[in-house]
Amino acid sequence: MPGVAPARYAYLGPEGTFAHAAVLALPAGAAADLLPAPTVAAACDAVRSGEAIGAVVPLENSVEGSVSSTLDELATGEPLHITREVLLPVTFALLARPGTTIDGVRAVASHPHAEAQCRRWLAARLPSAKVVAAPSTADAAAAVSAGTTAYDAAVASPLAARRYRLAVLADDIGDNPDAVTRFVLVSRPGPPVARTGADRTTVVLFIADDHPGALLEILTEFAVRGVNLTRIESRPTGSGLGRYCFSVDCAGHVDDARVGDALSALRRVCSDVRYCGSYPRADGSPAEPSASGSDDAYRDAAAWLARVRDGRPL
Amino acid sequence: MPGVAPARYAYLGPEGTFAHAAVLALPAGAAADLLPAPTVAAACDAVRSGEAIGAVVPLENSVEGSVSSTLDELATGEPLHITREVLLPVTFALLARPGTTIDGVRAVASHPHAEAQCRRWLAARLPSAKVVAAPSTADAAAAVSAGTTAYDAAVASPLAARRYRLAVLADDIGDNPDAVTRFVLVSRPGPPVARTGADRTTVVLFIADDHPGALLEILTEFAVRGVNLTRIESRPTGSGLGRYCFSVDCAGHVDDARVGDALSALRRVCSDVRYCGSYPRADGSPAEPSASGSDDAYRDAAAWLARVRDGRPL
Amino acid sequence: MPGVAPARYAYLGPEGTFAHAAVLALPAGAAADLLPAPTVAAACDAVRSGEAIGAVVPLENSVEGSVSSTLDELATGEPLHITREVLLPVTFALLARPGTTIDGVRAVASHPHAEAQCRRWLAARLPSAKVVAAPSTADAAAAVSAGTTAYDAAVASPLAARRYRLAVLADDIGDNPDAVTRFVLVSRPGPPVARTGADRTTVVLFIADDHPGALLEILTEFAVRGVNLTRIESRPTGSGLGRYCFSVDCAGHVDDARVGDALSALRRVCSDVRYCGSYPRADGSPAEPSASGSDDAYRDAAAWLARVRDGRPL
Amino acid sequence: MPGVAPARYAYLGPEGTFAHAAVLALPAGAAADLLPAPTVAAACDAVRSGEAIGAVVPLENSVEGSVSSTLDELATGEPLHITREVLLPVTFALLARPGTTIDGVRAVASHPHAEAQCRRWLAARLPSAKVVAAPSTADAAAAVSAGTTAYDAAVASPLAARRYRLAVLADDIGDNPDAVTRFVLVSRPGPPVARTGADRTTVVLFIADDHPGALLEILTEFAVRGVNLTRIESRPTGSGLGRYCFSVDCAGHVDDARVGDALSALRRVCSDVRYCGSYPRADGSPAEPSASGSDDAYRDAAAWLARVRDGRPL
Repeated sequence: MPGVAPARYAYLGPEGTFAHAAVLALPAGAAADLLPAPTVAAACDAVRSGEAIGAVVPLENSVEGSVSSTLDELATGEPLHITREVLLPVTFALLARPGTTIDGVRAVASHPHAEAQCRRWLAARLPSAKVVAAPSTADAAAAVSAGTTAYDAAVASPLAARRYRLAVLADDIGDNPDAVTRFVLVSRPGPPVARTGADRTTVVLFIADDHPGALLEILTEFAVRGVNLTRIESRPTGSGLGRYCFSVDCAGHVDDARVGDALSALRRVCSDVRYCGSYPRADGSPAEPSASGSDDAYRDAAAWLARVRDGRPL
Repeated sequence: MPGVAPARYAYLGPEGTFAHAAVLALPAGAAADLLPAPTVAAACDAVRSGEAIGAVVPLENSVEGSVSSTLDELATGEPLHITREVLLPVTFALLARPGTTIDGVRAVASHPHAEAQCRRWLAARLPSAKVVAAPSTADAAAAVSAGTTAYDAAVASPLAARRYRLAVLADDIGDNPDAVTRFVLVSRPGPPVARTGADRTTVVLFIADDHPGALLEILTEFAVRGVNLTRIESRPTGSGLGRYCFSVDCAGHVDDARVGDALSALRRVCSDVRYCGSYPRADGSPAEPSASGSDDAYRDAAAWLARVRDGRPL
Repeated sequence: MPGVAPARYAYLGPEGTFAHAAVLALPAGAAADLLPAPTVAAACDAVRSGEAIGAVVPLENSVEGSVSSTLDELATGEPLHITREVLLPVTFALLARPGTTIDGVRAVASHPHAEAQCRRWLAARLPSAKVVAAPSTADAAAAVSAGTTAYDAAVASPLAARRYRLAVLADDIGDNPDAVTRFVLVSRPGPPVARTGADRTTVVLFIADDHPGALLEILTEFAVRGVNLTRIESRPTGSGLGRYCFSVDCAGHVDDARVGDALSALRRVCSDVRYCGSYPRADGSPAEPSASGSDDAYRDAAAWLARVRDGRPL
Repeated sequence: MPGVAPARYAYLGPEGTFAHAAVLALPAGAAADLLPAPTVAAACDAVRSGEAIGAVVPLENSVEGSVSSTLDELATGEPLHITREVLLPVTFALLARPGTTIDGVRAVASHPHAEAQCRRWLAARLPSAKVVAAPSTADAAAAVSAGTTAYDAAVASPLAARRYRLAVLADDIGDNPDAVTRFVLVSRPGPPVARTGADRTTVVLFIADDHPGALLEILTEFAVRGVNLTRIESRPTGSGLGRYCFSVDCAGHVDDARVGDALSALRRVCSDVRYCGSYPRADGSPAEPSASGSDDAYRDAAAWLARVRDGRPL
């Protein structure tokens, strides 16, 4: 259709990163106009400025944990909402220019997180090779491809092999075969994505005053309503050691009565609550609230309270 | 005004009981038509049947604790609402027919609760007198007045002295000078009494299934909303040892956002919640919620949640 | 054996009460010297003075709830320990002098608690009979037997029929066929009864300062250690409305690590803890702690902590 | 003293890092033999192998949060104990070869964490300069000094200026003037450092089974004993998203009764507890337990429990 540009998605680049693979895994990803960004902040800013309609960034990794820069982009600056998540198995490969053999590798480049996840393999198979840090696995692959550096191999994603025309010297070299990274698609704020019954909600909670029991209180607000947390992470607010906000994922959708009730309660007891989106879970795991946490239970209780307050028969 | 009968109030009689004194302490009590009832149940049934528009019955005593029969009338049968409370200092007197002296007293009658509250005085001043149980302190006084029994003195209220034309041999003979009984006025269900800012709410909570943590859960629902309990009492439901309901007084009015929210939550997690009324506290002690428990905080949080759900700017 | 008096047990009398039936149900009860006492306090004082080696008194009833006078005897005065419990089904009978027929009954006497438990039967079968309060069911039976009163029948225990040579006009007239009363045998303090694995422990907890969350804190101390409560009752301390102590039964024995740990913690956070005995449960229900609450778990954790503190290998 | 080598401390190098500054801030640091290590893991392994008697590594930063690699070294592998902490204000400087002017700077290198903390300054003063990632701030300074790279300035610590003979073009360029990093000295396991009354204890808690309430349970074990947490961080265990351990700092020393009691309880309810040391707080803030959490309260409660169990007078 002439005159209509395809949707543009930013991602944590350069080309060949795991984020690149994640954006291609989106239904709209293959046909989209893709914009590699040098940092998570840059990818998010592309969305904020309108340059892209969404950005795919990593949120947490089963081996390395949460990605601080993504948590911070969600917690501060102009708000963004998560609208989708992608779970990507993390498989590493040892890449080199065609013609290189494993025995010939003298130095290996990679991102420190990737190197950490392949440490046992590297120690066993390349015990005497030097390991060098690169800004990303794709950067490492690009540099190997360009031949302008001292290293002759890269630990990177299989996608990077295709992108940078490198040979795969060894595949699946990660120490943990079940490693997976959770990416999220963030967009400008808008109405929540429709609920599916298997949803997740992300919020950032700022503590009113930093007392020892604050986290216990927050967890209790979720627990009394039967809302399960799937991730909780403290993050410094930058104003001193021991001053935190909490980045939280919970099971359920803001349109679920119990989730809305919990967020509303947190809004009262926290100094601020930043809503970061409700979206379908990639694992499809349904929320299954207890009887007392169902929408019906909430509706009945609200109707009962209205009758009590009006003096109508109960 | 011809043709208009004055309001009729039942009370736990016979005449001269502390409940009689309590009903006279009501603004409308002095001019009302009063109906002494033989039991708490009979007083409550007079309200249920329409014979009386209210009944004054004891709820708890600072020395003897809760009055089981009143708790049970509130918990079972056709519902009644508390609309007012009266705190009455409990002062006991030793009464006898005119002409009797303390030294001449051989046997003393009273209700066991009254006798228990004067035990030290009786042991010190009437060490050799026999103590006999009567159905109520007023019954004891009436019997002494009639002269038809073996006892020659009664421990009863000063009001009973006037009513039964007895002499006060000794005044203020209770062991605890601060003893006080809390009476409540119960009426047929209707809209809650208007809130004053210094209110109390009474409910009965029935446990869904009798698990060990049930009481802890109930208390937590109040605590997370900053609603303070002023009385909690377990009562057997009659279906076996270890099966209870809980009779609860909390600070605040059902029209307070935090109290309504707590009752609504209990309605979801309990098998039944019986609302027994919101009414002004006799001690006038205001509720003073924390910032997060104020009606304003609830209103703001609800408005915020609505904006989140609609996708409007926060 | 000449010169050796049999053990003497006091009980809440007079003869023919349910407490009398409970003491006869004890292994040593049939052969013992029995002492009926007019009140729970008198029965307990007989133990304190050495007049009896034990006293059988009611603690709670599945219909009427806790027996306040027994709770207060355990909570105050010279300490007593519970060493055994007896569960007695409560079956009521309508008793009269031989020759009386049900149709001829004009007035029925009983203790108010017993009358309350037979109210439906009385309303259905003796709708026009007058109901009169007596100090105990056995007193009512004795008075009917003596023929000196205005009433011609008594609601009492079957044991009272035999004792006072009365005819049973109707049996099992209680409204609740599963009604049961729990009696306890109290003795002077001594080492705990040996644990059986199916034990109960009774304590009275006094609150340090009367803040709203006090009960929640107490329950939490039990809950975190996996100790289940089987009864909790607030009792006024006599020093004003709203000032309570808590009478608590929990599953387990003070020699169980988790129970001792919970009591020790309560000793720190309460102003006072009164230990009232560990004793076998009459229902034989074993405690079955979770893995983390077993004596082994406590032993291992203590050994681990000792190694940490000594700097020994873990 | 001939023949005696000075103590050797490893630190996260290279020379000129903030960790280098932290090790020099130790009393023994100035005279010690120092070993810069390329990674946190390498620094820790130098201690494990005996090559160094301690290693100084960053644990958390008031702006960037916890340092994952340090948390993971404490949580896994051969155990290490923290024996001391150092709080170091983080002040950044813009460094270049002598003769360079700010206006002449075209490209700036730094570690991404450092760059993030100076982003506002860089945007305001060097809006058109390119920013390049280096493995560490000291690496950036070294490269600028060597003149072998494309960048002509480094964001690094003032210490790096002296070490690499660079000029300070601008000082205190961090966006947050209160930024501080907490470093810890780790050593091979041994007896805890003597308690001072102002101590901190670090542990890693592994969850027995991954249920939603696990974190709430852990926090409750600390809270009921009045032990305050000063840091809590979830870390993936590597065996799948949603499977965590918790890295925790609490106020107090393992020799404090309440801290030992809390750790002992966690040892029972967690699948594993890894003790990582008790050590003096750098801020000197004393623990100030409540009355119920003092060593005296614990001692009295233990003595009371022993008397109860032995049947001795209370």
